[in-house]
Amino acid sequence: MKAAVLKKPLEMELRELPVPKVSGDEVLVKVMAVGVCGSDVHYYEHGRIGRHVVEQPIILGHECAGIVVATGDRVSRVKVGDRVAIEPGVTCGTCAYCKEGRYNLCPDVSFLATPPVDGAFTQYIKHREDFLYPIPDGLSFEEAALIEPFSVGIHAARRAGLMPGSAVAIMGMGPVGLMAVVAAKAFGASLIIATDLLSNRLVAAEKLGATHTVNILEQQPEEAIRAITGGEGVDVAFETAGHPKAIQSALASVRRGGKLAIVGLPPQDEIGLNVPMIADREVDIYGVFRYANVYPQAIRFLSSGIADVTPLITDRYPLEQTRDALERARTQKEKSLKVFVYPNGLPE
Amino acid sequence: MKAAVLKKPLEMELRELPVPKVSGDEVLVKVMAVGVCGSDVHYYEHGRIGRHVVEQPIILGHECAGIVVATGDRVSRVKVGDRVAIEPGVTCGTCAYCKEGRYNLCPDVSFLATPPVDGAFTQYIKHREDFLYPIPDGLSFEEAALIEPFSVGIHAARRAGLMPGSAVAIMGMGPVGLMAVVAAKAFGASLIIATDLLSNRLVAAEKLGATHTVNILEQQPEEAIRAITGGEGVDVAFETAGHPKAIQSALASVRRGGKLAIVGLPPQDEIGLNVPMIADREVDIYGVFRYANVYPQAIRFLSSGIADVTPLITDRYPLEQTRDALERARTQKEKSLKVFVYPNGLPE
Amino acid sequence: MKAAVLKKPLEMELRELPVPKVSGDEVLVKVMAVGVCGSDVHYYEHGRIGRHVVEQPIILGHECAGIVVATGDRVSRVKVGDRVAIEPGVTCGTCAYCKEGRYNLCPDVSFLATPPVDGAFTQYIKHREDFLYPIPDGLSFEEAALIEPFSVGIHAARRAGLMPGSAVAIMGMGPVGLMAVVAAKAFGASLIIATDLLSNRLVAAEKLGATHTVNILEQQPEEAIRAITGGEGVDVAFETAGHPKAIQSALASVRRGGKLAIVGLPPQDEIGLNVPMIADREVDIYGVFRYANVYPQAIRFLSSGIADVTPLITDRYPLEQTRDALERARTQKEKSLKVFVYPNGLPE
Amino acid sequence: MKAAVLKKPLEMELRELPVPKVSGDEVLVKVMAVGVCGSDVHYYEHGRIGRHVVEQPIILGHECAGIVVATGDRVSRVKVGDRVAIEPGVTCGTCAYCKEGRYNLCPDVSFLATPPVDGAFTQYIKHREDFLYPIPDGLSFEEAALIEPFSVGIHAARRAGLMPGSAVAIMGMGPVGLMAVVAAKAFGASLIIATDLLSNRLVAAEKLGATHTVNILEQQPEEAIRAITGGEGVDVAFETAGHPKAIQSALASVRRGGKLAIVGLPPQDEIGLNVPMIADREVDIYGVFRYANVYPQAIRFLSSGIADVTPLITDRYPLEQTRDALERARTQKEKSLKVFVYPNGLPE
Repeated sequence: MKAAVLKKPLEMELRELPVPKVSGDEVLVKVMAVGVCGSDVHYYEHGRIGRHVVEQPIILGHECAGIVVATGDRVSRVKVGDRVAIEPGVTCGTCAYCKEGRYNLCPDVSFLATPPVDGAFTQYIKHREDFLYPIPDGLSFEEAALIEPFSVGIHAARRAGLMPGSAVAIMGMGPVGLMAVVAAKAFGASLIIATDLLSNRLVAAEKLGATHTVNILEQQPEEAIRAITGGEGVDVAFETAGHPKAIQSALASVRRGGKLAIVGLPPQDEIGLNVPMIADREVDIYGVFRYANVYPQAIRFLSSGIADVTPLITDRYPLEQTRDALERARTQKEKSLKVFVYPNGLPE
Repeated sequence: MKAAVLKKPLEMELRELPVPKVSGDEVLVKVMAVGVCGSDVHYYEHGRIGRHVVEQPIILGHECAGIVVATGDRVSRVKVGDRVAIEPGVTCGTCAYCKEGRYNLCPDVSFLATPPVDGAFTQYIKHREDFLYPIPDGLSFEEAALIEPFSVGIHAARRAGLMPGSAVAIMGMGPVGLMAVVAAKAFGASLIIATDLLSNRLVAAEKLGATHTVNILEQQPEEAIRAITGGEGVDVAFETAGHPKAIQSALASVRRGGKLAIVGLPPQDEIGLNVPMIADREVDIYGVFRYANVYPQAIRFLSSGIADVTPLITDRYPLEQTRDALERARTQKEKSLKVFVYPNGLPE
Repeated sequence: MKAAVLKKPLEMELRELPVPKVSGDEVLVKVMAVGVCGSDVHYYEHGRIGRHVVEQPIILGHECAGIVVATGDRVSRVKVGDRVAIEPGVTCGTCAYCKEGRYNLCPDVSFLATPPVDGAFTQYIKHREDFLYPIPDGLSFEEAALIEPFSVGIHAARRAGLMPGSAVAIMGMGPVGLMAVVAAKAFGASLIIATDLLSNRLVAAEKLGATHTVNILEQQPEEAIRAITGGEGVDVAFETAGHPKAIQSALASVRRGGKLAIVGLPPQDEIGLNVPMIADREVDIYGVFRYANVYPQAIRFLSSGIADVTPLITDRYPLEQTRDALERARTQKEKSLKVFVYPNGLPE
Repeated sequence: MKAAVLKKPLEMELRELPVPKVSGDEVLVKVMAVGVCGSDVHYYEHGRIGRHVVEQPIILGHECAGIVVATGDRVSRVKVGDRVAIEPGVTCGTCAYCKEGRYNLCPDVSFLATPPVDGAFTQYIKHREDFLYPIPDGLSFEEAALIEPFSVGIHAARRAGLMPGSAVAIMGMGPVGLMAVVAAKAFGASLIIATDLLSNRLVAAEKLGATHTVNILEQQPEEAIRAITGGEGVDVAFETAGHPKAIQSALASVRRGGKLAIVGLPPQDEIGLNVPMIADREVDIYGVFRYANVYPQAIRFLSSGIADVTPLITDRYPLEQTRDALERARTQKEKSLKVFVYPNGLPE
C-alpha cells in the first residue's frame, strides 16, 4: 500500500508499505477520506507540538473514515463492508480516567498522527474495533471524517452544559470553530454569534447556523456581543481561535454566572486573564481536550441533516499530493476552509 | 443606640443614632458579635473596593449574629428572643438569578457594609426575616458570626463539586482560607493541604483540620503539593489569597481533570494564567462570589462540632474601640487571626 | 368587567365584577387568550383535585396571556402596552425552595385557578410583575398561553437531563404530551416516539415533531418502542398520560441507565412498579411538578419557529361560552385537542 | 489448592483444584478473607438469583482480599507481595457503558461468584490487575473485603448526590445497610436514621455512625422519621432491605424535592408505589446496581478511621467450614451480622 510519510519538517515522501495484519480486536480499514487538521499542518511545518516531537518519519492525518476490509478473530462490533467513522484515539480502558468516562485524559492513549503513532494519510490502517462507528448510507466518508473536529465542539458544549435556548459566542471560525457552530445548533442554542477576521469563514458560519457574525477587524468583539445580547453577554462562550485576545474577549463576553469553554491552544503559555471578573461574575471556565463518548451522538446529528457541512471542504487532493494539501492548508486560509486527502482516489 | 461610623478613610466616630423601626417582614436584631473582615479593613483604609466607593459616612461590619428583639407584623420565621446568625446580603427575590437559586448574583442585593448600605458595628440592626437563621444553644454568637466567612468556603466547595475522599489544596490561610479548611473537612476531603507564609496561620490550619501545611517561604508550593500527592496533584484547589502567584500555583497544583475555585480577589485585574494547561488537563475553574443557600448547612456543620473555630478569634474589642479593632486587623497579621467587635459588651 | 364563575360542579355563571386595583409590584393584565387545561375540567366536573377543594365560587383558567393595561408604582419589568405571557404561580421568594431555584415546590405559592385563588376566565387579572414575560410581536396570545403546558414538558426535559441526540418516548398525547414532543424537539432529541390511543392526537404529534407514533390499541407500546430503538430502549421516557399502564410501559421502555420523568397524575395513589427493574437497570425516575425558570426559554423556542403549535387549538369560545368550552374539553377528546376561551373577544 | 464448591443447593464439597496460571494482565491472588454475602446464601439455598442460575458446580464468595503472589507479563499496577482489595466485577472496557464511566452496567461483566464465574471460597484466584487495589498496612484483609458492600453504599450516596449536612434515612441494617451508614457518615450527613426490626443490627448501626435508630416493630418508620426531622422528612432515603413496606416507607419519608436510592432487591417484581407523591413532591428515585469507580475512595475512607467496621464480623470460619459459614449466615440473623471465611487459615 502507499502512504505519505513526513520525513522531516516540510519534507514528505510517498512510500510503499506492507498492508497491516489484523488480529484479536483489530480491524483493517481502507481509508477513503482524510481531513487536514491544523495539528497536521503544525507537525508538517515545525516537527513538533509542545511535548510531542516527530523523531522518526511519521504518517500524519487523523480525521478519517473508510471501509472495513478485514477483521481480527475477536471482532464483533463491525464487519467487512461496513462504512465507518474512525475515532482516532485508542485508549487503555483500564486507568482511572478511562473507567470514569473521561478517556480523553487517558495517559496511555495511542492517537493517530501524534508521534510516534502513524496516522491516516495511507491506504489502509488498522484500528481497534471499539473506536470504529458504522455510519448510515446517507452519510458520506467526508462527513464521517468531519466528525472528528465536530466532536471537539460537541464535547465542549457538553462540558459547558450548553442548554437549549442559550445565547452562545464562538471565537474563531477555523474548522473546529465552524463545527462548534453546528454543535451549538444541535444543542438548541437560540443565538449563535460567530467571530473571525476572515470573511469567507464568517460566510461559512452563517450557512452552518450562526445567527450573527462579528468581523473582529470591523467591530470590537466584546462590544458587538454585548450589543447583540441586549447588554447581557452570552450564556456560554467557546474560544477556538487559540489567540490571547480571543480568550480575553471570550471571557469578557460571558454574562454573570455564564461559562467559557477553552478549546483553542494559544502559542504561548501565559495569557493575562481578568481574574477578578472570573470571581465577581462567578464564571465557570472549562478546559477542553479532544472529546470522549461523542461519536454516536455526532453521527446522529449529521444524519439528521442538521447542517450541510460538505461545503466546508474547499480543496481535494489524492494521496500522491498530500504535501500540496498540507501546503494549501498552511498558506491559503483566506481561500480554504477544509482541505481533504483521498488515499484511495478522489470521489467522483 | 450607639454606632461606629466611618467618616472618611482611617477616621471613625462613635455616634448616637435612633434605633430602627421595623415593619412588615423586618426584624430588629440586637447585635452581639461582629467579625472584622478584610473588606471592612479595606474600606476603612482606602474608602473603596473596586466599583464600591464610600461616599458618605458608613457603618461597617457584616459578619454578625445577635438576638431578635422586635419583629414586623408579617414576620413568621423568627420570634423575639431567638438567637440568630445574620446572612448579610438581602436580595430581591424576583430577578432571574434569585429565581434560579443563584441569589448571590442578584444585581439588586443590599449587602451590609457595602456602600451605601450600613453594617453591623452598631447596637441594633434591622434585617429581613428570611436572612436570619436561629442557632441552637450550643452555638455561640461568635461562631454564628464566623458562619459568614465559613459560607464562602462551603459555597466554593459546592461550586467545585468537592467529593468526599478528595485531595484538596487551599492557598492562603486568612480567615476565609482557614474556614475553607473547615469546609473541606465537612465535605469529607481526605487530604487537606494548607499554604501560607505566616506560621501562626499554618498552625491554626492544622488545628482546624489541615492534614498538611506548606510554608511558601520554605517550599515551592506546587512542588510540595505534587510531592504530598504522589506526583498526581490535587482534585480541587481553592485560591483564597488573592495573590497572582497563589493563583498560578493553585492552577499548577491541580491534577488532570481537576478543579480550581477562585475565591480571593487579586489587587490587579490581569493575571497571567497557563491557558494551554487549562485546556490540556481539562481543568474546571469556578469563580466564587459570596455564597447562596448555605447558612442552614453551615449551622449544622458547626453544631456538630466538626472543628473548634473559637480559637480563630484572637482579639476582642467593645464597640467604642472599633477603630482599634480595624487597626489591629490592618497591621498585625502575624499575631492576629480574627478580630471581633461586641456592640453590646464584651462576652464574659 | 365580566368573569366566568364556577358556582358548583358543572354550574357556571357570568358575573360582573370590579376591575382589580393594582399597586406596588402588581400589574393589571387584559386577558386575551386562555387555554382550557385538564385541571380546569376536573374542577368543573368534580369540584376538587386531591387536597384542593372548591369551597366557594371560583374563576378557573390558568393558561393565559394578555396586554398590560396598568402597573403599580414599583413595577419596572413591564410597561403598559406590553403583550405578555402569564406564569400562573406566584411564589413567596423567601422560602428555602424559592431560594434554591426550585420555586415550583414553594409551599406558599398562589396559583391561578387553584382554590381559593381565582384564575383567568375573566377580562382582567392582576399579577405580580416578575411572573409576566413580554413576548415578541411574532408570537400570538394563543402561543403565549400555550407556554404554560409547554413549560411542563421543558421542565421535565431539564429534570431528566435530556441530551441532544437522545431517543425519547412520550406516553400520552394530551396537550401536555403534545407540548412535551415540542420540548423534546427543542432539546435536540433525535428520536421522538409518541404513544396514545386516539389517532387525531398521534397525527398532531407527528406534525409537532414526533419521529414515530405508536397507537396502543394496535401495538404493545413497550415492544413497539424496543423495536424502534433496535432492542435498546429509549434514553428518556416521559409519562404524561397519568394511567397506570402507561407508567409501567414507560418504565419498561427505558434502556439500562436511562431515565423516566413522571408528569401525569394517575387517579389512584398506588401503582405497581417493577422495582427490581429500577435497581437492576439503574433507572433514574424524576417526579415533575409544574415548572420553574422556564418561561424565557419557552418564549425563545416558540419564537424560533421550532413548531407550529397553533393547530393544537381546535376550538374557540368567547368568555360568555366558557361553560361550553369546558364541556367541549370534557366530552370530545376524539375531536378536540385544545379548547380556548377569549375573555375580550374572539380573534379575527 | 483447596476450594469450597457448591454442587447443588445446600450441598457443598471441598475439592482439590490446580492453582490458576496467570499471563498478560492477570494476577494471582492468595485469598486471605472472604465475607459471606446475602447473594452467596441465596445461591447456596436456591441455586439461582433471578436470571442467574447455577447450572454446574460453582465456587461462591465475592467480597474478598488477599496477597499478590504472581503476575502476568503485562502487569504494572500491582506487584508480588502487595496486599490488595479485590473488586469482583471485571468489565469489558470497550462497550458504551464502560466508556461512559458506568461500567457497572457493562453487559459483558465477569463477576465473581455469579454463575458461571467462580468466586473466592478458594485459596487462590486470578483477577485482572486493574480491579485490584493495594491497601495500606493499617487496613486489615477483613476491612478490605468489607469494601465490597461498602462500595454499594458509596455508589448509592453518589448516585443520590448526597450533600454534607444532609438528613438521611437508611432502611434495613443488613451488612449493606450498615455499610451505607458508614458511607453516609463519610459523605458528611448530619442526621443518619437507621431502621430495622432486629435490635442487634440497630446497636451496630449506632456504633457505626447512625444518629438515630428506629425499630420498626416498635414505631411506624415514616412517622418516626418525620418526628426526628421536625416534620420535614429526609433529604435522601436509602432502601437496602428489599422489602415492599420498606420501599414504601422510604419513599414516604423523603421531603419535597428529596431523593430515594433503591438498593435492595425485593423478592417480587411489582411493588405498589405512591406515584402521585413522586410527582407532587418532585422526588428523584435512583436505581442502584453494584458500583463503579469507588474502591480508591472506599480505601481512603476506611484508612482514615471513619468507623471501626471490624465488629461487624461476628463469625469466622476456615475454608473447610464454608458450608457452616453459609448456614450460619442463612439461619442466625438475630445473632450474626457478617460471617467471614478464611481460605488460607483463620487470622491469629
